[in-house]
Amino acid sequence: MAERGHAAADTISVGGYLAARLVQLGCRHLFGLPGDFNLNLLDEMLEDEDLAWMGSANELNAAYAADGYARVGRAVGALVTTYGVGELSAVNGVAGSYAEDVPVVHIAGLPSRAAMSTGARLHHTLLDGDFQHFVRMYREVTVAQAVLDGTDPAAEIDRALAAMLAASKPVYVGVPLDVARLPVSREPLRSPLVPPASDPIAVADFTDALRHRLARMDRLTVLAGPGVHRRGLEASVARLAGVPGVRIASQVGSKALLDETHPASLGTYLGVNTRDARSQAIVDDADMLVMVGTVYSDFSTGFFSHRYQPAHAIELALDRARIGPAVYPGVRLDEALAALGEVVAECRFSSPDDVPPPDVREEAADDDAPLDHVALWALLQDWIPSGTTLIAEAGTAFYGALDLTLPERSDLLGQPVWSSIGYTLPAALGAALARPDRRPVLVIGDGSAQLTVQELGRLLAQPNAPVVLLLDNDGYTVERKIQSPEAVYQDIQRWDWNALPAALGASGTQVHDAGTPGELRAALHAASDASRAHFVRVRLDRHDAPRLLLALAAGIAKANARA
Amino acid sequence: MAERGHAAADTISVGGYLAARLVQLGCRHLFGLPGDFNLNLLDEMLEDEDLAWMGSANELNAAYAADGYARVGRAVGALVTTYGVGELSAVNGVAGSYAEDVPVVHIAGLPSRAAMSTGARLHHTLLDGDFQHFVRMYREVTVAQAVLDGTDPAAEIDRALAAMLAASKPVYVGVPLDVARLPVSREPLRSPLVPPASDPIAVADFTDALRHRLARMDRLTVLAGPGVHRRGLEASVARLAGVPGVRIASQVGSKALLDETHPASLGTYLGVNTRDARSQAIVDDADMLVMVGTVYSDFSTGFFSHRYQPAHAIELALDRARIGPAVYPGVRLDEALAALGEVVAECRFSSPDDVPPPDVREEAADDDAPLDHVALWALLQDWIPSGTTLIAEAGTAFYGALDLTLPERSDLLGQPVWSSIGYTLPAALGAALARPDRRPVLVIGDGSAQLTVQELGRLLAQPNAPVVLLLDNDGYTVERKIQSPEAVYQDIQRWDWNALPAALGASGTQVHDAGTPGELRAALHAASDASRAHFVRVRLDRHDAPRLLLALAAGIAKANARA
Repeated sequence: MAERGHAAADTISVGGYLAARLVQLGCRHLFGLPGDFNLNLLDEMLEDEDLAWMGSANELNAAYAADGYARVGRAVGALVTTYGVGELSAVNGVAGSYAEDVPVVHIAGLPSRAAMSTGARLHHTLLDGDFQHFVRMYREVTVAQAVLDGTDPAAEIDRALAAMLAASKPVYVGVPLDVARLPVSREPLRSPLVPPASDPIAVADFTDALRHRLARMDRLTVLAGPGVHRRGLEASVARLAGVPGVRIASQVGSKALLDETHPASLGTYLGVNTRDARSQAIVDDADMLVMVGTVYSDFSTGFFSHRYQPAHAIELALDRARIGPAVYPGVRLDEALAALGEVVAECRFSSPDDVPPPDVREEAADDDAPLDHVALWALLQDWIPSGTTLIAEAGTAFYGALDLTLPERSDLLGQPVWSSIGYTLPAALGAALARPDRRPVLVIGDGSAQLTVQELGRLLAQPNAPVVLLLDNDGYTVERKIQSPEAVYQDIQRWDWNALPAALGASGTQVHDAGTPGELRAALHAASDASRAHFVRVRLDRHDAPRLLLALAAGIAKANARA
Repeated sequence: MAERGHAAADTISVGGYLAARLVQLGCRHLFGLPGDFNLNLLDEMLEDEDLAWMGSANELNAAYAADGYARVGRAVGALVTTYGVGELSAVNGVAGSYAEDVPVVHIAGLPSRAAMSTGARLHHTLLDGDFQHFVRMYREVTVAQAVLDGTDPAAEIDRALAAMLAASKPVYVGVPLDVARLPVSREPLRSPLVPPASDPIAVADFTDALRHRLARMDRLTVLAGPGVHRRGLEASVARLAGVPGVRIASQVGSKALLDETHPASLGTYLGVNTRDARSQAIVDDADMLVMVGTVYSDFSTGFFSHRYQPAHAIELALDRARIGPAVYPGVRLDEALAALGEVVAECRFSSPDDVPPPDVREEAADDDAPLDHVALWALLQDWIPSGTTLIAEAGTAFYGALDLTLPERSDLLGQPVWSSIGYTLPAALGAALARPDRRPVLVIGDGSAQLTVQELGRLLAQPNAPVVLLLDNDGYTVERKIQSPEAVYQDIQRWDWNALPAALGASGTQVHDAGTPGELRAALHAASDASRAHFVRVRLDRHDAPRLLLALAAGIAKANARA
């Protein structure tokens, strides 16, 4: 698009420039809401016909949608809000992108430079003449901030976007309403922004050391984390998996990064909560563990129950590599993983370990019994088709989904670090747009869905015919499992879920109500018809939960009791 | 309640102490959501049987509800969220409380002191070991922050609450999960917290100067703002209004502060947009203008079209008084207003001006014509009963409501400074709880209602039988009036509004659909039945707007064009 008007003019507006940069980075959908301080900006940005406006019902939902879009599309997400009221509503979503290394651009439309420099007493301000309050807040949850004052705005935009690409973290771009229309040269657009390259000398050093270190090994265990997704390096991991003697476990934030039916797959590693004890042992007791794009947190380690020693491992992080204590700052994940592939291909590992057996399938209950989580996940396991983007909300949904074996060409979207309830419903919309070739299947509890329900209609209206399983279990089951299960604060307002899809504008959705295994099987069977969206209300007991959720809740309760 | 267990023990938990302080300050309802870091805190706080839990669907809604509760109740509002994900979702609502001087306590449940001091890599964090990110953000939008580290937590709580009372601004109290249960002495609870008193010497000086200044005046114009509401001083203003020669205009944030049918009422002042030109002139050309608890902003001055000179006026602000250039820092609004009342009672003002005639009533259109804003507000004017809390959302609703003449014992709740769309729907819930003796009537546009619709069911379920008028005009009319009326970003997802009350749990609500004046009259007539809640979908053209909204949008458009 940058070239579109090139013959006519060698300048473009600041808003147009920003839009062109986003498009170059793979961003085709812009989330957000209009407000009087961003109308110029939106008018300029939406001149770019490669960028489609996806109006959100509120700003938090916009931030979640942009995050889900970036994660699932392995691209950049973007949202536009207005000053103060808009940007602050989005900040929790942007913080989640920061916590989980998701490249998102938060673009805020600001009052005019004249109004800000004179400290005008405007609406959407604190009436104290200080227009820096909110960008100061954003410093805590973004890796760069650019407030365009008209001095070389294109360079400022590029500086922020480059920082986003380098760190895979969100950035903040504030555009005063008069700056949005200023002309800037199109010239820089001829050079698309790319993530920084590694230092070749550091890569060579690292490769040598890696070769030396792996020479004496007779097998290799890889723990692969969400950094692989952020850089879109799944194929490199799959190539590693093809080498005899290499085994690959995924972290909770990158389940099915390697096809889970692959013989080298160890499934999802979760410390003592890993489903298969042999898989756990292969990670924990590995002679040589390589951590690739991993995250270190309470939930990713089964509440720090891991026995592997990160300090002794080889680690390929987004912006550096490490072999035990030796750090290689200039070696970025892409090149580090390429080096690992090169070295491993030269290795002659001995015979591989026995492949762990497939996960144990639970016996489904009587078709007419009340539905429980055991039956729910067993039925989902049997049903879930290849080519699915499974989106699973924090709580019973995510921790149930982790125990599934996902089919090929599938992805699990969740938010295991930030774990903000309500995230997945708007994120599923982002996911649906980012991968129109896959079918979105959202599993979400009733308490969580209430936070962000506004996007339900727009989600169900997507052409890839989403399926939503609403786990109706009368409140916050995850909190009930931690403490005070009958406390009044565990309850939520009861809604008529079956009426909601149509009320929220998705009248073409087929609605199902399932309280028994038989009903759920029938609903899933019907949902295989991908010509329309399906909404399944899944009725569960308020105290029922899947295995991993119980383990998680017990871990939290134990940590709380210790404190 | 503080005394309840006094015989049994002279200590109370930190959570219990905080609850007791809130109850002493008139707070009887606690908004928010549970999360694993605040369960101890909630368990302790809710032991206080004078504090009722009002679970919110999300944290922004909780903050809005607490704000509306504080405004309408002339009391303190409070919400409880969890660390990170919860507190950040609420921050826009708290910023609105800051911008408009509303005393709200944001209580966040934090990880344990041990986890924070060791930089544990926990969920709901940025995984960088820094647990101060979010309190630093809250420094921008609260007047005091207390993160309880266990060292004299009761004193820390009291310090924060005292700062809130002094400034009438929100404060942040962070309670680590292990601190919530620590025992503290009940002793301080014997002395309820009160706002700081004025300096008596300063008050005496001010009173003398005021007497001197008013002695030569033959009349007095008072511009009364929302500070009067914050201190609950409406009766003092009403007493002033009883003095011959005194006239009272209200600002947009405190409409009907004085009963609008009172002979001394000048209605709502809005610069050149004031409905009655004589009212405007009485304020702008006053020989002596006294500003009482006023706000100075673009929207309160008709985009700075006022002719009155704040610098030459007498100003009674929350924490200081001023007579022209002479400032009296120790003279707080309560005492300043008392002094004004005393001095004015001694004055012998000459004959008052003629009373302006009542507002012009528009002729209602043909009963079967399409409904427009002229007819809507005329019909509402005829219908609105005394004892109403009218809640009007930013946009067509608030600027339509400003031109009403409110009946006695009524109040208008809006958010004219911060103007965050979506605010009023949860705020109406807070208002309904704060004044159960009044009937809440919410007027809100469809675009705005989408942001925070989750509270609709709970609002309609309140025993004071709320009435909701949903102005269904197909998007963001206020933005359409500013710029680019047909832009794609002005559109919203279409919902089936008539189905929503029942879907969101308020199945006892009577739903009406009004597209003509006749239908609206019938709906309002039915809504007079206060034995149940009513929801009226009011169908309007997307480009139709009331007089003041057009003036506002023109003001914004002009300011934007100048920039």
